[in-house]
Amino acid sequence: MKIAFAGFGTVGKNVAALLLKREFSTRCRVVAIVDSKGAAVCQDGLDLAEAIARKEAYGSGSISQWNGYGISDATTSDVLEEFDPYLLIETTPTNIDDGEPGLSNMTSALSKGIDVITTNKGPIVLSLNQLTELAEKNNSNLRFSGTVGGGIPILDFAGHQLKNERILSVKGVLNSTSNYVLWKMAKDRIDLQQALQEAKSHGITENDAHYDIAGIDAACKLVILANSIMRLGVELKDVTIEGIENVTLKDVLAAENAGKAVRLVGRIEDRLRVSPELIDKTDPLHVEGDNNSICFSTEYNNYILVGKGAGGKETASAVIRDLLDIYQVELLHDQTVSRSAMHSVR
Amino acid sequence: MKIAFAGFGTVGKNVAALLLKREFSTRCRVVAIVDSKGAAVCQDGLDLAEAIARKEAYGSGSISQWNGYGISDATTSDVLEEFDPYLLIETTPTNIDDGEPGLSNMTSALSKGIDVITTNKGPIVLSLNQLTELAEKNNSNLRFSGTVGGGIPILDFAGHQLKNERILSVKGVLNSTSNYVLWKMAKDRIDLQQALQEAKSHGITENDAHYDIAGIDAACKLVILANSIMRLGVELKDVTIEGIENVTLKDVLAAENAGKAVRLVGRIEDRLRVSPELIDKTDPLHVEGDNNSICFSTEYNNYILVGKGAGGKETASAVIRDLLDIYQVELLHDQTVSRSAMHSVR
Repeated sequence: MKIAFAGFGTVGKNVAALLLKREFSTRCRVVAIVDSKGAAVCQDGLDLAEAIARKEAYGSGSISQWNGYGISDATTSDVLEEFDPYLLIETTPTNIDDGEPGLSNMTSALSKGIDVITTNKGPIVLSLNQLTELAEKNNSNLRFSGTVGGGIPILDFAGHQLKNERILSVKGVLNSTSNYVLWKMAKDRIDLQQALQEAKSHGITENDAHYDIAGIDAACKLVILANSIMRLGVELKDVTIEGIENVTLKDVLAAENAGKAVRLVGRIEDRLRVSPELIDKTDPLHVEGDNNSICFSTEYNNYILVGKGAGGKETASAVIRDLLDIYQVELLHDQTVSRSAMHSVR
Repeated sequence: MKIAFAGFGTVGKNVAALLLKREFSTRCRVVAIVDSKGAAVCQDGLDLAEAIARKEAYGSGSISQWNGYGISDATTSDVLEEFDPYLLIETTPTNIDDGEPGLSNMTSALSKGIDVITTNKGPIVLSLNQLTELAEKNNSNLRFSGTVGGGIPILDFAGHQLKNERILSVKGVLNSTSNYVLWKMAKDRIDLQQALQEAKSHGITENDAHYDIAGIDAACKLVILANSIMRLGVELKDVTIEGIENVTLKDVLAAENAGKAVRLVGRIEDRLRVSPELIDKTDPLHVEGDNNSICFSTEYNNYILVGKGAGGKETASAVIRDLLDIYQVELLHDQTVSRSAMHSVR
């Protein structure tokens, strides 16, 4: 099966590493890797171990300067046109202004009948309906498990286990960086900036943590949940957002003294809202470090899922889960995956 | 679709109530209800609201003495033979000595090609392999979501979301009664017997709470998880079991003072074990009241599920989930479900 990568940062590299490890690796051939500087391509399949090593050693530009394979001005659209892969693994960074470059990458792939698995929230927040329609029209798959909860299969759980129940409300701790920061403030009695510095030094967050701290990342996840699981048809502007920028050490310690904790909680109730809340430390939603939690309340029960919400390896595992979900039968039974054969069984 | 009930206690009645409510209720016809005193039967379908009302008003014997429908000496095997239902909903009480009457009921149904959905742990603990083989041989379905975690879809989650990951270990709080008792002891500063009395008066536990308190119920759930999800092929005697009988108020309060709680924890690691443990109150496995929790550790992540583990309505929701999982397409699209038609698409 021919695969192309758009984006080859932390998540992309981790997906590549998992593909190398999995028992079906011999049946996956990565014909192109595109990053912000260009692409590397090979019809017979690129050496993924070498690609990971290059990117880790030389960073940005190392893919497009790969001797014999690199093309410095190639775009995702170009390589899709030329190499006609079966699947695009899209892990470019989230951009909630116009969704680019992810939106163009996905549109280009889906309109050619190429399946897309993504961890990029931007296009899913902005254009889920259009992308879904495009996928249906062209008989291709669009999966985005990794956009909510990192490695925790939140969307899958709601989509499968709760498919026959009416979800009445959702609440959860959906942003790992802000949770780590709030937890670290209380634990080490440090202020928000110091805790954020710690998060950066531990690789929990990227340099630009504004999306996380301002509550925008959590709001994006609420929108994806609301639209993909509950079909609410909402937009980011429908979410009332308050971040944790103004949470002080004093607030955090006052909560601590009352057996509680400040957490950035997202809620889908009558309205969508993200804001810091005081929650009991014994509440199952109360998680520490970079964990996430979510509670679905249905007509029958409250279901709470907890797990590590961020991290390259965890998010990459969501991509692999999507991949196996689409192609499992073919990949595990050593059948040749060709587009015509696959479409005939869909 | 013709359905028979074996067992019409708390769970059975709640399943009937949910069937009445659901949008597909008009397409389900309950031709027989069998309880410990006999049966009520009707080829055109029994009035479920009336059946529930009778059982609640008059208790044991009220089904078999139902004027015009009751047969006082009928067994499940008899009604399966005579009415040839499509599905048996088996909710008789758990018996871990010989699995009866559930084991005979299920064997009888499956060998006739009748699907079985059960909440009865006994036969699943004792004879999962034989029952599964019987189901395969006769082209019938066997589902038992309600045996572990009540309404929390623990088996479904592990079977679907984690199907492509290696589960390395499992730990969890799997018995609601003992959790309620331990929680209540600390909360109200009362001893175990008093807390157990409270559990009984709140309907959390049946009169015979020995299975719960001695850790046997939790051990049964571990065996079901180990065999159905991890294919370990273990028996109840392979579980080292220590119940909470000897946990004193002093133990519970000492834990409380250290920010911890005593909980009955089941573990599947190198060995299977159920025993009281001290856990941090901030540990996601720490749950209050009659909640359950479970943590699956895989090669990628730790996944924790939390929810109400007991209760007639919650456990009944697991039966409905199984039912929709098997027949969804037919029931929701108003297709006639006949055995021959169903078997042809399996």
